[in-house]
Amino acid sequence: MANLEAHLRVPGPTPLPDPVREAGAWQMVNHRGPEFAALMGRVVPALQRGFRTTGDVVLVGTSGTGGLEAAVVNHLSPGDPVLAVTVGAFGDRFARIASQYGADVTLLEVTWGRAAEPDAVRDAVAAMQAAGRSPRAVFLTHNETSTGITNPIGPLAAAVRSTAPEALLLVDAISGLGALPFDTDGWGLDVVITGSQKSWMVPPGLAMLSVSQRAWEASERATMPRFYFDLKAHRDAAQKGSTPWTPPVSVCFQLDVALGLIEREGYPAVFARHAACGAATRAGLRSLGFELFADPAHASNTVTAARVPADLDWKRFSADLRGRGLTLAGGQGALTGQVFRVGHLGYVTVNQILAALEILEEALAAAGRPVDRGAALAAAARAADRASAQIADPPMDASMSAAARADGTEVQA
Amino acid sequence: MANLEAHLRVPGPTPLPDPVREAGAWQMVNHRGPEFAALMGRVVPALQRGFRTTGDVVLVGTSGTGGLEAAVVNHLSPGDPVLAVTVGAFGDRFARIASQYGADVTLLEVTWGRAAEPDAVRDAVAAMQAAGRSPRAVFLTHNETSTGITNPIGPLAAAVRSTAPEALLLVDAISGLGALPFDTDGWGLDVVITGSQKSWMVPPGLAMLSVSQRAWEASERATMPRFYFDLKAHRDAAQKGSTPWTPPVSVCFQLDVALGLIEREGYPAVFARHAACGAATRAGLRSLGFELFADPAHASNTVTAARVPADLDWKRFSADLRGRGLTLAGGQGALTGQVFRVGHLGYVTVNQILAALEILEEALAAAGRPVDRGAALAAAARAADRASAQIADPPMDASMSAAARADGTEVQA
Repeated sequence: MANLEAHLRVPGPTPLPDPVREAGAWQMVNHRGPEFAALMGRVVPALQRGFRTTGDVVLVGTSGTGGLEAAVVNHLSPGDPVLAVTVGAFGDRFARIASQYGADVTLLEVTWGRAAEPDAVRDAVAAMQAAGRSPRAVFLTHNETSTGITNPIGPLAAAVRSTAPEALLLVDAISGLGALPFDTDGWGLDVVITGSQKSWMVPPGLAMLSVSQRAWEASERATMPRFYFDLKAHRDAAQKGSTPWTPPVSVCFQLDVALGLIEREGYPAVFARHAACGAATRAGLRSLGFELFADPAHASNTVTAARVPADLDWKRFSADLRGRGLTLAGGQGALTGQVFRVGHLGYVTVNQILAALEILEEALAAAGRPVDRGAALAAAARAADRASAQIADPPMDASMSAAARADGTEVQA
Repeated sequence: MANLEAHLRVPGPTPLPDPVREAGAWQMVNHRGPEFAALMGRVVPALQRGFRTTGDVVLVGTSGTGGLEAAVVNHLSPGDPVLAVTVGAFGDRFARIASQYGADVTLLEVTWGRAAEPDAVRDAVAAMQAAGRSPRAVFLTHNETSTGITNPIGPLAAAVRSTAPEALLLVDAISGLGALPFDTDGWGLDVVITGSQKSWMVPPGLAMLSVSQRAWEASERATMPRFYFDLKAHRDAAQKGSTPWTPPVSVCFQLDVALGLIEREGYPAVFARHAACGAATRAGLRSLGFELFADPAHASNTVTAARVPADLDWKRFSADLRGRGLTLAGGQGALTGQVFRVGHLGYVTVNQILAALEILEEALAAAGRPVDRGAALAAAARAADRASAQIADPPMDASMSAAARADGTEVQA
């Protein structure tokens, strides 16, 4: 590519801030030595603050999918009834992993592009109970990357808790946690999974999981086979400042640096930045004539899916965008060829969204489509302002952010 | 540490050459895009040359242990009889993974510090056959990191082939492949596992596995559960230039660069360099008064274990070494507190071994132990020369190296 700038706007891996990039070039250290133990001593508490949990958080050298597998195999036994609430391709994947290991999975499939509804979840749990198959676990997706939907995890979790209080709540928060308000302990979640290459602004290679006390108890009885993904081995090693198997050391360096940047910015500011970027993306795409895929009431602030117009050759158009320096993502699973996706999570600012929209505008004009030059940029900028103004009362504990900002440093937002 | 230089001499992760370090700082790309497909198009054939196989090689985002688990769960079913030949902690781990997934494992345990013998393996296979439990697979360890032993894989494989030709040969080559002569196809090996952070001079995060045609056929019938480690999903994605789940992209960048360095140096030169470093380490440690742990006839050229003298406080001594800039590894498993280990694999030269020996000398003198200053360095340098001279007829196909060296570039060796 002959472009001076590259704009990677896929829903993970996200671009890396320079200090995170540079930590990837650090020389190796012994993962059984004091430097690595010191790193674990910083990273684990920082993640606990990010998850909002006082429970254990473990690092596993794998992708988000491996994190989902770890959640399944540590807490379930073959034959266990499971309710998998799925709103897209990643919800389906979570369910498929459990089936693969012999769980008795009931799917609650929500129309793609819509969020799950607490009442529907409550009814599904009750129906399983009535059939004598009370769910051992309920799977929820926080932010569905294939459709650009954010589920209301608090109300969904409450619906499960009120109906089947004994069911474990396993939550795929891979592409939302860290960018969107989230409250692991407040919502009573048992296992929450995220991945380094999403909101955390780190290359892929690490899954991070929180595990509640009752999830640990469940793991004692869970008989699905596991070795690499054995979370208890991870917890035991973490208590000695290490990992049971050799971890991806450079990705750990980068996570350490990135968590420092995030805490200096402060979670309320991070959430507001994502809200502004999400609003700007949606307004800009609409202004360019694209139809958004997701229910606006539950549109994700980390990824937006838009329908590919019937008269647009997406393969050709996306190759042209790449030639202009902009990389977007296509559709996934059943949505392949139907939608395209713009990632706006992790290392992203409103300016970067405006740059992406500007390239889209240029490419549409070059393709001979009607474009009101600059209108999408103006619409996006105004939407970003409105979204920022609405975040006057951030949902996070302000004291946490104040502490993190004690050094007065601010990261560009 | 106040030292100008850090000497990481553990048996993985190995230090990184500067070009490999720097690739860790590259900006992210889309792992479903053309840049990553081009990388896969370079890396996979380079690994096939390194493994000496025309079969498939897949990249899995995990540690070596995860690679062992992938080898087990893709090719075996619960109840399958397995012969696990173990010469140390990593052979034990390979067996434990198979047991965890329900294989019927017979252990052939070799005294730690010694290599496995073809006759003993043949007898063990025959005994299983006589008992009506002909092994579905035989597990071998190429280079046992806990004891510093290199097994004669060619003769061991031949012993299995001649007795149970239908048994799959699964070989843990994590800490030897790429540094020591190895011939996947010539030896008829079905699954060979290695890890990025060993001879390949790359940070941890990737396991690389070769899979033979008959191993793929076995995987069709193998019923152990698998999802993240499903190698068929990896092969199918690789054919489209990608991976089934998000790969550790920066580690892949680094592997690409490191394979270029290795091929420019040429495998015969890489093997000779490791032989020289191994010989120098052994001669130097002996000269310093340490007793080597491994059978000299099978001493590894990637890692050396030496006994901790009864009157030496290892914890204190190793902390002193760290203060002087040298990091060594302690003992593992049953050898904890009994031995220490010096890694000499990947990014290592004789000069770096001399530096480590020099620091050891200094520290021994500071601890009040008798040291003939400089004698260990002289012994090591002479041993390195002898080892290099013995590699007059490198066991690799010279044409492969000549092709790789076509650009005339040489890497420091």
